[in-house]
Amino acid sequence: MAHDLVIGVDLGGTNVRSAVVGAGGVISHHAKLSVSGSKSADEVIDHIVTCIGQTMASCGREEVRGVGVGTPGLIIEETGTIVYAPNVPGWTDLPLKSLLQQRLDLPVSIENDANAAAIGEHWVGGGAGYKNLVCITLGTGVGGAIIMNNQVWRGSNGAGGEVGHTNVIENGAQCGCGAPGCLEAYASAPAIARQAREALQTGEESALLTMCHGNPENITSAMVSRAAQEGDSVARTVMHRAGTLLGVAVASLTNLLNPEIFVIGGGVINAGDLIFDPIRHEIEKRAYKWSASILKVLPAQLGDDAGIIGAARYFVITEGDVRSMP
Amino acid sequence: MAHDLVIGVDLGGTNVRSAVVGAGGVISHHAKLSVSGSKSADEVIDHIVTCIGQTMASCGREEVRGVGVGTPGLIIEETGTIVYAPNVPGWTDLPLKSLLQQRLDLPVSIENDANAAAIGEHWVGGGAGYKNLVCITLGTGVGGAIIMNNQVWRGSNGAGGEVGHTNVIENGAQCGCGAPGCLEAYASAPAIARQAREALQTGEESALLTMCHGNPENITSAMVSRAAQEGDSVARTVMHRAGTLLGVAVASLTNLLNPEIFVIGGGVINAGDLIFDPIRHEIEKRAYKWSASILKVLPAQLGDDAGIIGAARYFVITEGDVRSMP
Repeated sequence: MAHDLVIGVDLGGTNVRSAVVGAGGVISHHAKLSVSGSKSADEVIDHIVTCIGQTMASCGREEVRGVGVGTPGLIIEETGTIVYAPNVPGWTDLPLKSLLQQRLDLPVSIENDANAAAIGEHWVGGGAGYKNLVCITLGTGVGGAIIMNNQVWRGSNGAGGEVGHTNVIENGAQCGCGAPGCLEAYASAPAIARQAREALQTGEESALLTMCHGNPENITSAMVSRAAQEGDSVARTVMHRAGTLLGVAVASLTNLLNPEIFVIGGGVINAGDLIFDPIRHEIEKRAYKWSASILKVLPAQLGDDAGIIGAARYFVITEGDVRSMP
Repeated sequence: MAHDLVIGVDLGGTNVRSAVVGAGGVISHHAKLSVSGSKSADEVIDHIVTCIGQTMASCGREEVRGVGVGTPGLIIEETGTIVYAPNVPGWTDLPLKSLLQQRLDLPVSIENDANAAAIGEHWVGGGAGYKNLVCITLGTGVGGAIIMNNQVWRGSNGAGGEVGHTNVIENGAQCGCGAPGCLEAYASAPAIARQAREALQTGEESALLTMCHGNPENITSAMVSRAAQEGDSVARTVMHRAGTLLGVAVASLTNLLNPEIFVIGGGVINAGDLIFDPIRHEIEKRAYKWSASILKVLPAQLGDDAGIIGAARYFVITEGDVRSMP
């Protein structure tokens, strides 16, 4: 049974998490370390190596065949080099794959985090059984990945799939990417919080004011979601607006790509139908009937583990088969 | 030399045109028949058969290996059946491939017109040498086709590539497809004429009023283009607006698909930089720099012949090689 296990790693802005991923995407031997406050690429790599070490110590190092890492940023697939990554200090032209292989003395694969989440959902999550899907993750940003004919579409130089940077309002709110009116500027968790703060400036009554203890700067998208589910009118309007603009983008992508399914994940989907109903409404209003007739829009199923599971799966796909993960 | 030639056919809303397509996309033996006023599917098919007959009569029937047809509408690739086609009477669930094969006693292939134009431009036109491209044709509608890894992306049930139905203004002008604010409602030839008429309602002075003999209903996009090139301020604003919204969609598609090139064709591109400059401006403003760094936006090169050339090429790709068209 030696060399049968694969470790999946998910590097986020706050934490690095690792786990053993077995057959059917079952995960075990979790480890988690904070990376916030890290000041250099080396420091982040140290944390990744330590986190993987904790998982290996508990599952037995001799069992481990290799490591699949999901990370923010643009990756050169052939070399596992990160061209750049927003929000990770010093993460520029970084040969992460070879650096980790040296440190771990194990084969390593590197995949973009949004692609890793999509690979996970496609393997054993909300997208299982479909060959053409678009995954959208509503979190700190709006992550996206396109899988066509069971393959991640990477584009001509590795930057494809940026669903979050589809324009939805021509000269709308400034997005973190620098452009105005991107989907991410309306449907990410911070964007939902921002829109709630803006809505409160009109002086309307809202349970959000109590939730944030009178300081709108404390508002989070989770608060907005909870208030909306409890019937708060300001919060419902904000969630509906985010869902509507997500639906506008989803309808455009339906006309463009004619996928079988959109798998939508991230913390924001805890709002349930408050997000999914307006998406379905916009599809009905805007998408070609023929394309819409086969289309499904479903929540992601793997939650925070999608990236770990998908990163491990990507390792298996690219580095060869492993008995324990058929 | 028998059975060496392929005939390409382009069915439009006004005319059906056919020609022999030889090596390198060189075309000859043109024929053209009006189909406007046709009242049934049979009548349109009669016109197609007559048009092909004229081309065959001039090139020699015994030389012809087969016929590739480009047609509006949604096509089931496997069977060559047209599911539906806007603007062609009775063109619903029509087994066009088998009907034409019976009438012509020759192998026939059927391809969507926008895909055919893209295949032509990809073979010997503005997209030659690229493997990932998006073709956009600004004509009566805004046609689109996506070629990835040298293959047309058809989507899950054949309806992919509808670039013209990307939303650019959330609740904007009503598009022919029924949705508000599609690119087609701003950048097609009729949409450009409509926007010029709307602009004239403000009472502003414009050379367009002379060109249309005082009746704005006579305004065409060609007039707007000519007036804009002659410096008319109203016309320039209208062309700039069409180019800007086209650029918004192109930038979104750049982030989404990361193609190597957009090939933009159709009568509207006669306006040249009046259309291409705002597209480039919006890419600069909105697209990821990494994706934009390799991106080209170029005019189509085959003009009205793209569909004929691409339809013939599609026949060769799907029905086997032909000596005269390597």
